[in-house]
Amino acid sequence: MSHRHDSYLGYLNGYDADVTGAFPRAATDQSLLRRLNELSVLGALRGNGARPLREVADATGLSWRSAQVVTEKLGEQGWLAETEAEADDKRIGRPARRYRFRSEAGYVVGLDIGQRKIRVIIADLDATVVSSHQVEVSAEDSADARLESADQALREALATAGIQPQNVWAVTMGTSGVIAPDGTITSVLLPGWTGLDPRTRLTAVAPCPVTVVNDANLAALAERWRGRSAENMIYLLVGMRLGAGLIISGKLHTGSGGAAGEIGMLQGSGWNDASERLAATPVAPVNESPEDRDLAATRVFQAARESHPAALAAVDRFAADLARGVTPMVLTVDPELVVLGGSFSHAADLLVPRLETLLAGTCVHTPQLAASERGDDAVAYGALRLALDTVDQRIASLDSASPLIPAAVRGH
Amino acid sequence: MSHRHDSYLGYLNGYDADVTGAFPRAATDQSLLRRLNELSVLGALRGNGARPLREVADATGLSWRSAQVVTEKLGEQGWLAETEAEADDKRIGRPARRYRFRSEAGYVVGLDIGQRKIRVIIADLDATVVSSHQVEVSAEDSADARLESADQALREALATAGIQPQNVWAVTMGTSGVIAPDGTITSVLLPGWTGLDPRTRLTAVAPCPVTVVNDANLAALAERWRGRSAENMIYLLVGMRLGAGLIISGKLHTGSGGAAGEIGMLQGSGWNDASERLAATPVAPVNESPEDRDLAATRVFQAARESHPAALAAVDRFAADLARGVTPMVLTVDPELVVLGGSFSHAADLLVPRLETLLAGTCVHTPQLAASERGDDAVAYGALRLALDTVDQRIASLDSASPLIPAAVRGH
Repeated sequence: MSHRHDSYLGYLNGYDADVTGAFPRAATDQSLLRRLNELSVLGALRGNGARPLREVADATGLSWRSAQVVTEKLGEQGWLAETEAEADDKRIGRPARRYRFRSEAGYVVGLDIGQRKIRVIIADLDATVVSSHQVEVSAEDSADARLESADQALREALATAGIQPQNVWAVTMGTSGVIAPDGTITSVLLPGWTGLDPRTRLTAVAPCPVTVVNDANLAALAERWRGRSAENMIYLLVGMRLGAGLIISGKLHTGSGGAAGEIGMLQGSGWNDASERLAATPVAPVNESPEDRDLAATRVFQAARESHPAALAAVDRFAADLARGVTPMVLTVDPELVVLGGSFSHAADLLVPRLETLLAGTCVHTPQLAASERGDDAVAYGALRLALDTVDQRIASLDSASPLIPAAVRGH
Repeated sequence: MSHRHDSYLGYLNGYDADVTGAFPRAATDQSLLRRLNELSVLGALRGNGARPLREVADATGLSWRSAQVVTEKLGEQGWLAETEAEADDKRIGRPARRYRFRSEAGYVVGLDIGQRKIRVIIADLDATVVSSHQVEVSAEDSADARLESADQALREALATAGIQPQNVWAVTMGTSGVIAPDGTITSVLLPGWTGLDPRTRLTAVAPCPVTVVNDANLAALAERWRGRSAENMIYLLVGMRLGAGLIISGKLHTGSGGAAGEIGMLQGSGWNDASERLAATPVAPVNESPEDRDLAATRVFQAARESHPAALAAVDRFAADLARGVTPMVLTVDPELVVLGGSFSHAADLLVPRLETLLAGTCVHTPQLAASERGDDAVAYGALRLALDTVDQRIASLDSASPLIPAAVRGH
């Protein structure tokens, strides 16, 4: 018997909810079984290309006849498509029908609204990216201007991919700040952002539901999705801003008020100005210090690699500032892994060994440290993942009267 | 369709495991359905007293005949007992048979091995306590002596309740220190405790599986079980030692190395000697300061209530020390609730308002603060709950060849 089944019953038995004796009702509901069989067929086809009915029956344990009934019903609903028989099938008499999951039945959007850029990623139901779009914005842009840019970028990305707005099933927006469960933002970074509820401003996809989540949290989710398998992980967004996202028991933990990982508020952590202090280190004639602070920081890291004394001292100090926030988070959560992401992750060669030494000196159980392998699209990818999760939950709902309406079948 | 079913499918669909497309296999397995029906009947009876077959059928949605078959099978296995018909049943012809869940089919043990006391609680499968036993030990006892005392206490508690050792299905032991997933303890409190694996030393219940868990973690679990419903909670064990246990998303979070909540390791937190500093505050002639440090601390709290200046300053300082550990945990986890438990919880009137002020000054989202409503049996109760959870999972296993063998039916 599989672990999954065991856990299901543990769950139904109230194991998670600590209610003794809350066993499931009897599984005698025929419509429930029919729905389970539908989900089973969807599962056999999703992510597995086109398969003949016999393979669907084998994979699901259904009889050939049941598999046929279920497959036809899902086809009528727009979830499955019949494909052309392949060439080698034609050699042996009548070709076997093949069915595939219609990943183009719906789309999801991941959106990263940052200080200087807005990124849009659109993917189909197989998580295949069909459109990716980025626009530059100014740090001084008003909230209205920033949201208008985002809406426009989304509109263009949809147009480029030829996707109708009504076929977008979920949008997740990542941005800086603490985002309360009611969607309200508190942010010191973006002008006019505090008190804003940006969910209603994306007219490009109305009336699709929009979720707003803190950017470091989404980057953590992206790392868990396409990077690391650690069950308990602290993701550090390290750049001109410092932030953290938590994965606990394999899931994103945002906290009861959306403020999990806000360790920068700790007095004396130095997180507020650690990056600016680093970037301001004089490693060249003052009039050569670039206005772009990320670039200034990059020069300091490079100078440290070349053993420039002031740069080395600045990197040591930056690592110590970082550790002052990371150490209490590690002592609280005890993760297997701490991932260094964000724009400074290119300096992991300097930062990881220093952090390792600092953590080993204070932590009971020192986690592994590693640089993120993702680029600066981590927030948008995390947003995409969360949007997909929402849709997956709705697809897998036992309520077969799903509110999701697959996009019209455009030929087989 | 219920939330539970939705979550089950979310789970099977790989929502938790972030694997897209991992749908469940078809629910065509007849033995699986039979087992689901058994669990459904167990659920209808467990915690609900004796019920006639017709009520079992109604509650489960099974036909009368199916309910009868399943009930008889569970009766043969020792999970159910037929009870005497009630008096008023007899007035109307032949009395209806009634069935009840045999909560006496097995037992679980919660054990708290502390510095000065060992507490044993034994409960049946309905979580009804059938035996509770406490013995005093010395802080200087060797590990061997302490474990021998625990073994003896457990033996006596079993004998008092007339329970055969083979009918104990799970034991959880709570004790101080960081307990690694392999069971190894690291503790500075108890002599000889570091490096110990105490699981094999409880001969009174051999060969029953024994789990070892940190005491603050278990107290957190007890608070969640019989106190607070918060999904995200930090439990503070506040006494002559300071510790913390975390409930995250409704579940106990022990961390990847069993070291979650070990914020006392944070340099400058002052958690190591905060309690002793408080207890050592001179509030009476020096020769009247009691050797019992808990009692000495109680006197300082009492003096503070009577506005003794040195005592008030000591309590302020203690609250500040406490906050230096609590603040980073709150910033990391963002819980709804912080519970003040442990032997100093009687001073919640002094500590909670001070902590509230200190947290409100630094936290993004200030949690609710409250005193624990449990006594000093919290660790033993948390241990009992964890042991029950283990057994519940095994009872609810879809594998009907359960390794649990109900105690012999002793008459109806």
